[in-house]
Amino acid sequence: MSSYVKDLIDGIKNGRISEEEAEIMLKKAPFVDIGFAKVDVHRAYRQGTPEVIYGAGKTAEQIRTIAETMTERGQDRILITRIDNEKAEALKDLKGFTYHPEGRIGIVGDMPEPDGIGTVLIVTAGTSDIPVAEEAALTCEALGNKVERAYDCGVAGLHRTLNHMDQIMSASVIIAIAGMEGALASVIGGLSDCPVIAVPTSVGYGASFEGLTALLAMMNSCASGVTVVNIDNGFGAAYSASMINHMHVKEDKR
Amino acid sequence: MSSYVKDLIDGIKNGRISEEEAEIMLKKAPFVDIGFAKVDVHRAYRQGTPEVIYGAGKTAEQIRTIAETMTERGQDRILITRIDNEKAEALKDLKGFTYHPEGRIGIVGDMPEPDGIGTVLIVTAGTSDIPVAEEAALTCEALGNKVERAYDCGVAGLHRTLNHMDQIMSASVIIAIAGMEGALASVIGGLSDCPVIAVPTSVGYGASFEGLTALLAMMNSCASGVTVVNIDNGFGAAYSASMINHMHVKEDKR
Amino acid sequence: MSSYVKDLIDGIKNGRISEEEAEIMLKKAPFVDIGFAKVDVHRAYRQGTPEVIYGAGKTAEQIRTIAETMTERGQDRILITRIDNEKAEALKDLKGFTYHPEGRIGIVGDMPEPDGIGTVLIVTAGTSDIPVAEEAALTCEALGNKVERAYDCGVAGLHRTLNHMDQIMSASVIIAIAGMEGALASVIGGLSDCPVIAVPTSVGYGASFEGLTALLAMMNSCASGVTVVNIDNGFGAAYSASMINHMHVKEDKR
Amino acid sequence: MSSYVKDLIDGIKNGRISEEEAEIMLKKAPFVDIGFAKVDVHRAYRQGTPEVIYGAGKTAEQIRTIAETMTERGQDRILITRIDNEKAEALKDLKGFTYHPEGRIGIVGDMPEPDGIGTVLIVTAGTSDIPVAEEAALTCEALGNKVERAYDCGVAGLHRTLNHMDQIMSASVIIAIAGMEGALASVIGGLSDCPVIAVPTSVGYGASFEGLTALLAMMNSCASGVTVVNIDNGFGAAYSASMINHMHVKEDKR
Amino acid sequence: MSSYVKDLIDGIKNGRISEEEAEIMLKKAPFVDIGFAKVDVHRAYRQGTPEVIYGAGKTAEQIRTIAETMTERGQDRILITRIDNEKAEALKDLKGFTYHPEGRIGIVGDMPEPDGIGTVLIVTAGTSDIPVAEEAALTCEALGNKVERAYDCGVAGLHRTLNHMDQIMSASVIIAIAGMEGALASVIGGLSDCPVIAVPTSVGYGASFEGLTALLAMMNSCASGVTVVNIDNGFGAAYSASMINHMHVKEDKR
Amino acid sequence: MSSYVKDLIDGIKNGRISEEEAEIMLKKAPFVDIGFAKVDVHRAYRQGTPEVIYGAGKTAEQIRTIAETMTERGQDRILITRIDNEKAEALKDLKGFTYHPEGRIGIVGDMPEPDGIGTVLIVTAGTSDIPVAEEAALTCEALGNKVERAYDCGVAGLHRTLNHMDQIMSASVIIAIAGMEGALASVIGGLSDCPVIAVPTSVGYGASFEGLTALLAMMNSCASGVTVVNIDNGFGAAYSASMINHMHVKEDKR
Amino acid sequence: MSSYVKDLIDGIKNGRISEEEAEIMLKKAPFVDIGFAKVDVHRAYRQGTPEVIYGAGKTAEQIRTIAETMTERGQDRILITRIDNEKAEALKDLKGFTYHPEGRIGIVGDMPEPDGIGTVLIVTAGTSDIPVAEEAALTCEALGNKVERAYDCGVAGLHRTLNHMDQIMSASVIIAIAGMEGALASVIGGLSDCPVIAVPTSVGYGASFEGLTALLAMMNSCASGVTVVNIDNGFGAAYSASMINHMHVKEDKR
Amino acid sequence: MSSYVKDLIDGIKNGRISEEEAEIMLKKAPFVDIGFAKVDVHRAYRQGTPEVIYGAGKTAEQIRTIAETMTERGQDRILITRIDNEKAEALKDLKGFTYHPEGRIGIVGDMPEPDGIGTVLIVTAGTSDIPVAEEAALTCEALGNKVERAYDCGVAGLHRTLNHMDQIMSASVIIAIAGMEGALASVIGGLSDCPVIAVPTSVGYGASFEGLTALLAMMNSCASGVTVVNIDNGFGAAYSASMINHMHVKEDKR
Repeated sequence: MSSYVKDLIDGIKNGRISEEEAEIMLKKAPFVDIGFAKVDVHRAYRQGTPEVIYGAGKTAEQIRTIAETMTERGQDRILITRIDNEKAEALKDLKGFTYHPEGRIGIVGDMPEPDGIGTVLIVTAGTSDIPVAEEAALTCEALGNKVERAYDCGVAGLHRTLNHMDQIMSASVIIAIAGMEGALASVIGGLSDCPVIAVPTSVGYGASFEGLTALLAMMNSCASGVTVVNIDNGFGAAYSASMINHMHVKEDKR
Repeated sequence: MSSYVKDLIDGIKNGRISEEEAEIMLKKAPFVDIGFAKVDVHRAYRQGTPEVIYGAGKTAEQIRTIAETMTERGQDRILITRIDNEKAEALKDLKGFTYHPEGRIGIVGDMPEPDGIGTVLIVTAGTSDIPVAEEAALTCEALGNKVERAYDCGVAGLHRTLNHMDQIMSASVIIAIAGMEGALASVIGGLSDCPVIAVPTSVGYGASFEGLTALLAMMNSCASGVTVVNIDNGFGAAYSASMINHMHVKEDKR
Repeated sequence: MSSYVKDLIDGIKNGRISEEEAEIMLKKAPFVDIGFAKVDVHRAYRQGTPEVIYGAGKTAEQIRTIAETMTERGQDRILITRIDNEKAEALKDLKGFTYHPEGRIGIVGDMPEPDGIGTVLIVTAGTSDIPVAEEAALTCEALGNKVERAYDCGVAGLHRTLNHMDQIMSASVIIAIAGMEGALASVIGGLSDCPVIAVPTSVGYGASFEGLTALLAMMNSCASGVTVVNIDNGFGAAYSASMINHMHVKEDKR
Repeated sequence: MSSYVKDLIDGIKNGRISEEEAEIMLKKAPFVDIGFAKVDVHRAYRQGTPEVIYGAGKTAEQIRTIAETMTERGQDRILITRIDNEKAEALKDLKGFTYHPEGRIGIVGDMPEPDGIGTVLIVTAGTSDIPVAEEAALTCEALGNKVERAYDCGVAGLHRTLNHMDQIMSASVIIAIAGMEGALASVIGGLSDCPVIAVPTSVGYGASFEGLTALLAMMNSCASGVTVVNIDNGFGAAYSASMINHMHVKEDKR
Repeated sequence: MSSYVKDLIDGIKNGRISEEEAEIMLKKAPFVDIGFAKVDVHRAYRQGTPEVIYGAGKTAEQIRTIAETMTERGQDRILITRIDNEKAEALKDLKGFTYHPEGRIGIVGDMPEPDGIGTVLIVTAGTSDIPVAEEAALTCEALGNKVERAYDCGVAGLHRTLNHMDQIMSASVIIAIAGMEGALASVIGGLSDCPVIAVPTSVGYGASFEGLTALLAMMNSCASGVTVVNIDNGFGAAYSASMINHMHVKEDKR
Repeated sequence: MSSYVKDLIDGIKNGRISEEEAEIMLKKAPFVDIGFAKVDVHRAYRQGTPEVIYGAGKTAEQIRTIAETMTERGQDRILITRIDNEKAEALKDLKGFTYHPEGRIGIVGDMPEPDGIGTVLIVTAGTSDIPVAEEAALTCEALGNKVERAYDCGVAGLHRTLNHMDQIMSASVIIAIAGMEGALASVIGGLSDCPVIAVPTSVGYGASFEGLTALLAMMNSCASGVTVVNIDNGFGAAYSASMINHMHVKEDKR
Repeated sequence: MSSYVKDLIDGIKNGRISEEEAEIMLKKAPFVDIGFAKVDVHRAYRQGTPEVIYGAGKTAEQIRTIAETMTERGQDRILITRIDNEKAEALKDLKGFTYHPEGRIGIVGDMPEPDGIGTVLIVTAGTSDIPVAEEAALTCEALGNKVERAYDCGVAGLHRTLNHMDQIMSASVIIAIAGMEGALASVIGGLSDCPVIAVPTSVGYGASFEGLTALLAMMNSCASGVTVVNIDNGFGAAYSASMINHMHVKEDKR
Repeated sequence: MSSYVKDLIDGIKNGRISEEEAEIMLKKAPFVDIGFAKVDVHRAYRQGTPEVIYGAGKTAEQIRTIAETMTERGQDRILITRIDNEKAEALKDLKGFTYHPEGRIGIVGDMPEPDGIGTVLIVTAGTSDIPVAEEAALTCEALGNKVERAYDCGVAGLHRTLNHMDQIMSASVIIAIAGMEGALASVIGGLSDCPVIAVPTSVGYGASFEGLTALLAMMNSCASGVTVVNIDNGFGAAYSASMINHMHVKEDKR
């Protein structure tokens, strides 16, 4: 998306883009304005990258319109996050649409082949964290990453965590997902030597304050190499993890 | 202290204490009113238990007066918590007074022989937690407990924690002390099978909010058997730990 | 659970466990991985101790699968907390299952004979705190403790509290349960000379902030010997109380 | 003060005050504008009531100017709250000025004879609450109330509280002052049958959050008849208590 | 209630109550233990004062049992707060029961004749605050107070407030009820010269945080003579107001 | 409204209003007291300004009564905010009533011709912010302002924001509406040179805390010229924006 | 500043600015990079508008360098906010520098003639709010506004507020400054019919939480036409007020 | 560090490490226990990686002892963070020690040659954020990264941000550092297509709450690819950034 802006600015400067073209690009692109939303349609510049529609707070009809606009403009893979069964049902006749209820994610188009540096390991403290973990896992896969899952590894049963030692040591990136006191992030951060993205979840009760305690705890992790995203934000963690797991692409471009 | 109240109530009921005596007891005891404070002096009922003076917010002169009043009434061991070097200096000529700067604690009288069930293990996550740990350790010792110290065992270096596995498995009670994200409590809670008292500390910066994050995290510990005291409250943890480590006394009285 | 880890480590060190066995133990045990959860099955090492399933956030089907896996591996007593009538109904044909709606607890197997040092006294400030109290009481009983209940003893009617003076004086451990301002913990803490575990509840309105005020107040209790668990965490308080009330077991093992 | 406004409005309506007089009254009175402050000077309407200067955040020079302006307009008793030794020293040559360091209060003029219905009882939980208590006590006395003090009566030593039972039962109004968990308010509220004004104090550490915990706890008091003022606001509690203790004046005017 | 405790203690001391009687009184009274609640039955000592049942969190059946127990013991006026239409319907055949939906209050027995010093004025900032105001008004009336209501007097339309100037000046006590920014308390506090009890309400949205903002603002009122109760606590404000409005009773007893 | 008070005071002073008239005006006006509300009816002094009824927390019947009272007194344009479809349906036979569901606003009477200095530009960060934006837009229009809408311009796609550069540069006032991190306010504030009113919205999840994060962020905007209103308060922003966009009226009156 | 960006973009589009010039403008302007800061130097486009240096967190030497860089580029009026006496002393030999300690503001160059629509009225609740008020007042004056000051007008003495009725009715914009409960904003908002910008201040103690309570209260003001800036942000309020008071300039440009 | 644990576990399993060796390794390594701290000394396994000493809360003497212990064990590069001038002075005779006051960092040994994939770009919103930025920059350099700095690029002057467009587009990782409202993270996140690590700073005043507002805002960034670390945690951001910028090492090991 931002490469579009840069191309435009560069184009203006080096004459590749004429004044008239520039004006049109600035006015009409890189999005289509469909009233209630502005739909990005220039992602095609970066082949293979899916567009993402954040489904919460949008009606099924709005989601459909956005997805169809994207498809018309040539986007062949679209990720639709945070949609429930009802919305999924309403979208089921979108061409190429499949719904993954465990992660509340719909995908238009096929899953790509993994092309990252290595594996993204997704670890959860408990069973209740699985929906967030699946949002992360499916997003990673849709973005071209090999994913391994290690669920219900909370630190109160340390042997459960240590049982995944091989995976922890060999992962490219780890997404550590936990509610309650969020201690998993620190333990994983201490055991691994790769970047760890911590996702606090709203799992817990009382003084867990719907994820705030886990968020603050993860922020204060005594382990180096841990960064944090918003409560229940499996998508965001996956997006960053995928960027990291595709650093060689960046390198190759040099 | 409360046994005094009970004795009094019982005494009134069974006639052991006359009306006149009861009135005097209610009016004049179990404390001496020295104006700015009411000094408990009936602790002697429970032999060997030291009185405690919370030194913060009291002047050296106030502490001295309270301590001397206690001594006059027969108390032979007094614990004075939260006093700095300056106050300790001003109290140094109290008979039998020794100062322990590492835990900011002064003690009047000798340390007792340990008579608890087993050992109180005091574990800290980092070096900066040591003052709170020493407050706990010295309090435990003054209350008749054998203490073992395991400092700088933060979970980001799990091998440091696991290195104390033997002590963790054999302790009667564990006091787990940590700031920042407070994950130590959960890991210790998961490894041990004795009561764990967690002490959040104000160690940290930014979103540690001077111990609030650690407190909330410990509250939400996924490990069973963990209870929590106030931020930096080494004394309180030690007091409860000592009660637990002296449960056999309770049992013996039956 | 942790004794399993220790046995394993010791076994490796002293040759009792062969390399192959160790690898198997590390890989396959001490839990059975049933996909959405890892089920601990080595608790049998500590005879008589029930396994616990935290029912909130698990479907009846998930709970059933976990319970059956445990039973198959020889566990003869299972505590299932935080389940409502509907889930209980769905589980009613689990062999040996009984449901206690007042504490939202299901138990597979029989209640054990009490074998603790003494009595766990459970005190509530009001009538609305009873569900939390019953969660604590039933957990204590399932863990082998004699329990006494003293409900609706809020400090605004001090005579209600004092009426239980005999029980307060003779208990091994007290669980003090209160919402609103949580003052019960301090009053009980001052009257008793045994460990007090305070449970803040979400009872109240307005500035009670669903238990936060009670939690903070209990944290700041001016009475020594009080430790605190999470809001509404009757189970956690009971688990710690039971550990304390079984300290003699610890002692006997020496 | 407000009676001034009412008199003015009435006077305009019934013709007692001419248009010209009304305009002058509205423009120039009931205060003198001395630039940095507007000094009320019509309090003399209510004989015997002292004016109050809130000393915090004002320089000694500003306080002096305000006090002198009041005196010039006939005010013969002025209460100056929240001033430290240094400011008091700078004000010592104000005619009729005396300083009470224990309550950080200066008074210009004599203390009045008590003329309230009964006694205002001021109770504190601990020794550290005394400065707030003295602010309240001296304010009460300056407003014409008989005051009794009961300090260091924290509920963790219930016998200390109960020792003041006679005073608690006979007081007209009680001001209950406590930091930490603020449980004193509920216990006093339950024992008494007169209005209780609770003052949370900033005494405590860690999760006392400088009085916030006590404030919230007092707000949620399970005892009826308890109202609350701001943290450390001894003056405010005293002002309300005095109003209550002078209700007969109100009655007599009918 | 507390007079019961005092009578008991005095009785023991002066011999009026025999040992046996005392034991019975301590054991069986001043409440009847009906399992889920302890019902106070000695209020009859203070003739005319109704008992209060806090209806929230109790079932209609529990409320009925408590009310009937009270009635059996001679209580002829009972106030039942926080009950909705459904519970009221279920209680409608309680003898002497009437329901006041505007204040969510049920009353068993007749309203008493007002016997206070003067009038309790109840002021609200808006229309939405009326349910809280009616809880306060009906409680005041049930406790024997003459009540005046001044609703929708928010300070943004100052003329609405000033329109009630006569009532504000002549009230014995004022209950000021407001949500949002709660400024009404300060304006009323400045205009009146009687005690003002401020009730923050949960009326508002966004940064009103369900009454917290109003509570904090009222706590910080720049007007003297303002004390505060919990959010939406119309009952609590009324109870204190009634105590204040009956100060002459206290005086007469001397 | 306040001009009414001023006219009254002036009228009393200069004799234009007689004593009797003044008393009547003070007692009966400028509002009609209809029991549950006080309806302002003197707005007609300022021709063309609509009255506003805040619909949340009022029944359809209450709204109707207030609206009809206003209409009877000559008000020909009424804005009814925060009403849902159900209430709108119940009000549909109010004469001249139209409902705008996208902004949850009902209007009695016609929309006025715009007569402001320029245009009010309403910008949102996302699609979910549109209901708040429409509340603002319709309010602006009802108050006589020309409105332009620029929706879904979040800063994460900066080109979407910059695409509206012409509008941003030429607006009289901008209302910037955003949830989540609220960065839109700072970016718009930096790009424009007119007053910007920022409206935080409750759009977001987790650590957005229902708009609190956006509110705090907007409060701390590094851009000059940004002021803030309550979460989701589209009406309030519009009211202030309209005042600013009609400053020339103020000027003309001089 | 933003007009620079727009000119640049327009210039590129219409050919007025060559590619080479555009590149230079993009690279080198509109600021001078002096290492630790980027100094805006293109403000001269809008004649008469002073540059502003936020002095807090900058050394006197840094401020001097920034000011001198501005002066060299032709800026003849610079406002330096939040500087104390010490920094002012170190800057006193800056050409044309004068220091205003009451508002902690330094100004390089002369004050301009007022050229706004009308008067900016600055009202404070108390004496302690004056430093914030003077920051606002001096900023307004430096930006070309006529200012009137009304200090110590807190609503607890409503006559003090009403005494400024004429000014309140005739102001173009009002800046309402208050700490504690911040009720001034609502009262002023209700009395005036011009935009009100509310500034919460950190004046107060206890539950004022250093201005947070006032901020939240002002956010929830029941008066329409009130917007809010950050705690103690006199400058920000003044900047917005000046924009509003210069709306005719905007109009004239059309 | 964790590779040590893994090697140990593997060694035990495959027989490479004998029982005796394992016991020694578990007991004595991989750290040296120097009483107040456990010093990691097995980092040498990962050549070139410096050890880190968190200097805050440690005395100069403690830091010296730790550093010397590390050096003795063969560590040739040590990073000492959060030390002020005074501690640096006390450490200046440590062999190979240099102090960087702008980032409060001391380094023992030489800076390594950069060997990362690309460049770490460090952007700050303002001048006051520079100390945190330098902590990050120096840490990155000590960990073998090429660093570019872009300071004072706050979004209120968007041209300042856009001026660094080339660097933003070509960086491997970006560290975005901002206080106040923290909007920089979202704007940079939207403009770049590499991982962005956001560091909230304590820069600001009032409702910035010492970085909390920036932290929350960054957590809620509408831009994908943004993760967050603790307030002022320049070191933590740098450590993660370096891990990401060295992903090729991970890849090469496969």
